[in-house]
Amino acid sequence: MKILIIGGDGYLGWPTAMHLSKKKHQVYLIDDFSKRSIENQNSVTPLENIETMENRVKIWNSLKRGKKVKFSFGSLINHRFIYEELKKIKPDHIIHYGEQPSAPYSMAGRTEAVFTQSNNIIGSLNLLFGIKKYCPNAHLIKLGTMGVYGTPNIDIEEGFIKIKHKNRTDIMQFPMKPLSYYHCSKAADSVNLYFASRVWGLRATDLNQGVVYGIDTPETILDKSLNTSFHYDHIFGTVINRFMVQAAIEKPMLVYGKGNQTRTFLNINDTLQCVELAIKNPARKSEYKVRNQFTEVFTIKQLATLVRDSAKKLGLSTNIKYINNPRKELAKHYFNPSNKSFLKLGLRPRKLNTTFVQNNINKILTKKDNIDLQTISPKIKWSK
Amino acid sequence: MKILIIGGDGYLGWPTAMHLSKKKHQVYLIDDFSKRSIENQNSVTPLENIETMENRVKIWNSLKRGKKVKFSFGSLINHRFIYEELKKIKPDHIIHYGEQPSAPYSMAGRTEAVFTQSNNIIGSLNLLFGIKKYCPNAHLIKLGTMGVYGTPNIDIEEGFIKIKHKNRTDIMQFPMKPLSYYHCSKAADSVNLYFASRVWGLRATDLNQGVVYGIDTPETILDKSLNTSFHYDHIFGTVINRFMVQAAIEKPMLVYGKGNQTRTFLNINDTLQCVELAIKNPARKSEYKVRNQFTEVFTIKQLATLVRDSAKKLGLSTNIKYINNPRKELAKHYFNPSNKSFLKLGLRPRKLNTTFVQNNINKILTKKDNIDLQTISPKIKWSK
Repeated sequence: MKILIIGGDGYLGWPTAMHLSKKKHQVYLIDDFSKRSIENQNSVTPLENIETMENRVKIWNSLKRGKKVKFSFGSLINHRFIYEELKKIKPDHIIHYGEQPSAPYSMAGRTEAVFTQSNNIIGSLNLLFGIKKYCPNAHLIKLGTMGVYGTPNIDIEEGFIKIKHKNRTDIMQFPMKPLSYYHCSKAADSVNLYFASRVWGLRATDLNQGVVYGIDTPETILDKSLNTSFHYDHIFGTVINRFMVQAAIEKPMLVYGKGNQTRTFLNINDTLQCVELAIKNPARKSEYKVRNQFTEVFTIKQLATLVRDSAKKLGLSTNIKYINNPRKELAKHYFNPSNKSFLKLGLRPRKLNTTFVQNNINKILTKKDNIDLQTISPKIKWSK
Repeated sequence: MKILIIGGDGYLGWPTAMHLSKKKHQVYLIDDFSKRSIENQNSVTPLENIETMENRVKIWNSLKRGKKVKFSFGSLINHRFIYEELKKIKPDHIIHYGEQPSAPYSMAGRTEAVFTQSNNIIGSLNLLFGIKKYCPNAHLIKLGTMGVYGTPNIDIEEGFIKIKHKNRTDIMQFPMKPLSYYHCSKAADSVNLYFASRVWGLRATDLNQGVVYGIDTPETILDKSLNTSFHYDHIFGTVINRFMVQAAIEKPMLVYGKGNQTRTFLNINDTLQCVELAIKNPARKSEYKVRNQFTEVFTIKQLATLVRDSAKKLGLSTNIKYINNPRKELAKHYFNPSNKSFLKLGLRPRKLNTTFVQNNINKILTKKDNIDLQTISPKIKWSK
């Protein structure tokens, strides 16, 4: 299969590229390095140094572990660029990770909110027009987020819900109540994507993903130049990754609020597994398929406790520090999301456990000197 | 009250300005003339010549029928402009008509879809940041559209719906299934607006408006320079207005498809009435209030029949011509939207009837020579 990965330089894009290359797919990558640019603006860096894209690609290709991958530099905002790529490649599948991925960044101010929504909504709209024009049968796999649903008081289904109202029924898009301007941008994407599938007959899968954790995949560890951009900072660091870094250097784990917020999670290797299942089970023509992409549900407090206890067995002493929640979110809430769709396709979830946390902490300890503690505590508030 | 009207040059913005000025409000107008620019790009013009904004304002003010209105030129896309205006004016209410309003235009191609979504979503996002910064207690009245709901198989409530699912309930945003990229932009606006009210405590009313018809309000007829931009073309002309123009010149009324599509409608004077009711009954702090703004429900065929029969009594002979539907929409569907919220506030609907149609046709006949028949038939298709 010819697979185009948009955002191929990212935390998930790069491991996905190697994984699919290994599986003998012909993989094309594009990226505009806008995430590296936001890193620079905010003085945050991944835990490990990340090679230039050119070098990573060269080294991966030289290892001959899979088909050669190709990289092009460019942005979805430049529609001529993406049109040319689609015309040239004619991909069977397009995996779209190419969006500004940080909720806190989108809440920093007007500039950041506008960048996030322009980049994500308009970039994806350009992509839809390009697919319609140059490869209308391509299957678009778009990364969404579980955060579009918010924390409703009913079970969260996958994209759609059957609503019975005054003795009539319809199957409708599951109501969205996003948690940040970033999450709002994903909600807008979903509305556009569903529309394009209805009106133009495009084939689209929207993967509403939970919070991803973990450093390594079987490919990232093959060479020190192949690692992925593991973040632990307040902009791009997801919660488990932040906790493991704090625990590694025996600093308190900062829990926002009382830690009863409940969220969905998955191991970075299960992102690869899910995306591969989405490729093997594509949406049909005119179909907009939504799959919730996560494996487990935890409260933030449960995560902190697991990391603390796992660290303790390694002889590391950390504790949980509850700080004012910089976000605006329900402190306590019902939360019961479904992920049946991937389970039915054969997803075999990796569980988050002590062994995993310890392995990751040990890996983090090998890069201990790189940790900049200043960048972990939250600096962006949802409202002032 | 100090009231800022965004899009004050438009079909609805200008009559609203005069109406509220007459009611002794202090009215400020802004507009970037982007709609006039789209008219130029597409060689379409309103039925009657529209004065420059400067002249219209001068003439209205010289009539002394209300408080003086003030106009500033500028766009919401230029956040410095709207920040300055909000800082200077500190409005009590902001009526936001300032969006690209044509569904067909948004479907013409990538450039038009991207303009529509950038202009509408990012412009409104800039406005939200401006309100938060300079007038957080201002009440934002944002014009939405009934078209965000699509045509669901259940009754359409006003913005929210109580969903019972697996023995639990929640009140959630009514699921959206927009009819064009324009309508998608309004859906995205609603998500952002609701978010800003939750997180920042803004006060927002979203008016999901039906299709507006009619030429005159009590103020537009006071002077020939005060008329509003009545359109009958394929870009900006709404369906009843198009039919009345076709009937006036005894040409067939073009019905898209079989004409069983059902939509909501209201008289331009009822737009004024509704907006005034929204001002008198503002959203509270942190409240995102949605009101469906329409008075009647018709199928397209019913409208064509009414216009044909009304024209006949004036001695004008027209007929209904069914053409291939350029849009992608359900040919036949359930449709039962609520407008209880405005009725409860005292809305007294003007009914669409023969007398109204005849008066409007007679008015159109006085400008018969201006009609360019070429611009009426649809040139933009939802899919090719």
